Amino acid sequence: MAQSNTVNRKWLLASRPHGEPSRDNFRLEETAIPKVNDGELLLRTVYLSLDPYMRGRMSDAPSYAPPVAIGEVMVGGTVSRVMASKHPDFKVGDWVLSYHGWQDYALSDGSGLTNLGSAPSHPSYALGVLGMPGFTAYMGLLDIGKPQAGETLVVAAATGPVGATVGQIGKLKGLKVVGVAGGAEKCRYAVENLGFDHCIDHKAPDFAEQLAAACGNGIDVYYENVGGKVFDAVLPLLNTGARVPVCGVVAQYNATALPDGPDRLPLLVSTILKKRITMRGFIIFDDYGHRFGEFYQDMSQWLGSGQIHYREHIQDGLETAPDALNGLLKGHYFGKLVIRVGNDQ
Amino acid sequence: MAQSNTVNRKWLLASRPHGEPSRDNFRLEETAIPKVNDGELLLRTVYLSLDPYMRGRMSDAPSYAPPVAIGEVMVGGTVSRVMASKHPDFKVGDWVLSYHGWQDYALSDGSGLTNLGSAPSHPSYALGVLGMPGFTAYMGLLDIGKPQAGETLVVAAATGPVGATVGQIGKLKGLKVVGVAGGAEKCRYAVENLGFDHCIDHKAPDFAEQLAAACGNGIDVYYENVGGKVFDAVLPLLNTGARVPVCGVVAQYNATALPDGPDRLPLLVSTILKKRITMRGFIIFDDYGHRFGEFYQDMSQWLGSGQIHYREHIQDGLETAPDALNGLLKGHYFGKLVIRVGNDQ
Repeated sequence: MAQSNTVNRKWLLASRPHGEPSRDNFRLEETAIPKVNDGELLLRTVYLSLDPYMRGRMSDAPSYAPPVAIGEVMVGGTVSRVMASKHPDFKVGDWVLSYHGWQDYALSDGSGLTNLGSAPSHPSYALGVLGMPGFTAYMGLLDIGKPQAGETLVVAAATGPVGATVGQIGKLKGLKVVGVAGGAEKCRYAVENLGFDHCIDHKAPDFAEQLAAACGNGIDVYYENVGGKVFDAVLPLLNTGARVPVCGVVAQYNATALPDGPDRLPLLVSTILKKRITMRGFIIFDDYGHRFGEFYQDMSQWLGSGQIHYREHIQDGLETAPDALNGLLKGHYFGKLVIRVGNDQ
Repeated sequence: MAQSNTVNRKWLLASRPHGEPSRDNFRLEETAIPKVNDGELLLRTVYLSLDPYMRGRMSDAPSYAPPVAIGEVMVGGTVSRVMASKHPDFKVGDWVLSYHGWQDYALSDGSGLTNLGSAPSHPSYALGVLGMPGFTAYMGLLDIGKPQAGETLVVAAATGPVGATVGQIGKLKGLKVVGVAGGAEKCRYAVENLGFDHCIDHKAPDFAEQLAAACGNGIDVYYENVGGKVFDAVLPLLNTGARVPVCGVVAQYNATALPDGPDRLPLLVSTILKKRITMRGFIIFDDYGHRFGEFYQDMSQWLGSGQIHYREHIQDGLETAPDALNGLLKGHYFGKLVIRVGNDQ
């Protein structure tokens, strides 16, 4: 089932998941490819980004963004090519960064699009290291984490697009970097390829003890992108004055109820007091949209000079998206997960 | 049992409390008044400040300050007079702000003392609105809370020395101020005398509903100085981008175990993320000692012009200190609790 030039496949949200999302929460619909009117352009999706935040949009619990409505196309960042244009700013063949979700084709009036030109060197990077995940890593670590050379940084999901970038920027800034990842292969990659000082396997039975041993001087910055048991192991190791940027809690997204007690909420608040900790949640474009240029310049330079490595997991076929999102939330992928929806030439 | 000019009474920590501190955790010792050597001065305690943080110093659980050792004099801020001086910077009769704890007399080499001069207008204010509690209110609200005119501020212990000051500064800055206090009398005082917009009795069975009704536009700044059930009622009302300076969790200081579940720690972390909340703990002199002058100037002016009201509860007799500390932790006092240890003329 490949991308067609006559049919538009769309993954619609069919029902809201209780716990893990499954294939049954989505419905594939096929429609005609829309026609272009004056001032519009037709986009063909080449790459679709899958990201943990999508789990939140499938629920109608209060959150920072409205949920996807039942029967609507699932949202997502896309890199697309212009197939037809009646818009003065876009030519046929241009690559664009868009937000048209889980479908083959979309009409646009040009608003919200970033034109990547006719021959970007790595168009999919706009969904990763040069886009939302990279920007999230950069601002959270530098602006909220305020790291000082010689301090200890811990970051989980160490081989994911955010964690890998956080850790590598940390090394550039002179930090001791301790990653957390699932499994020996990911941990080896974080140390050998990304240059982390240590990487601890959260599946190990003595995970908390190993983390404590790796952080002999405590933790000054914990970049929170997973929540759950990693945070539990980090909490007692936080140093006085530690900073905790909170960009995600992927380990908790599928939770259907609060965990059993005791209730540690008062413990967290009193730890924040006793250790003078700063915790701050942020949503990257809402809080830092005005600083994208600064990030883009630094990151392009680091990529160009080989100081930041970036790994993608490219998977073919829009039809695989529901299962891939489920796997993403369970940590099954290694590197930034991108669905190649159609021909990328 | 009044202050003598031949005997030095000292309250020593006799044992560490489990839960509420009681009279049995202290032991009164009488010794001779020490002799002054070159470079020293003898201080007679006039006022002793009692503050919630003292409960923490009685425990040996890890905290931001070392515990008082068993058999040592209980710590505390004091306003004293110089009785004898062989130190060039202090004259007999001078008033000083010191930190000599629960005793009648103390020797000093002058280090850490603030000379208040020979005739300060309100010497005990140095333990309250012009000292640590006032400074804590000022920096926590303004530097961490970053309030904007028109926003909603909630502060608990609304008639205590920190809470009353936080709320009044909030009104000066154009905020809607909602206090929380225990009992109708305190609530009436917060509204009628301190100028709060509302004050909710946390003993009311429908406390959470009343708080929600008073905060129709949600909460932008929650000044955390009590923890416990007030925080529980505040959490769902926090607005996107809310700031939560954490200066104390007095409601939790006597806790001997974590409360029963469910475990809401993950809920707090995900709320910090979803609502992009900043929580930050601070210890006033460690974090802001260099900005005391700025505070002192502003607060002196506000007191002088009558824009800030200040209420003290002066209680006579060093012998009452243990019971008074217990009562303080239970919210029995109204205004800043100060023990008048000896003659204040």
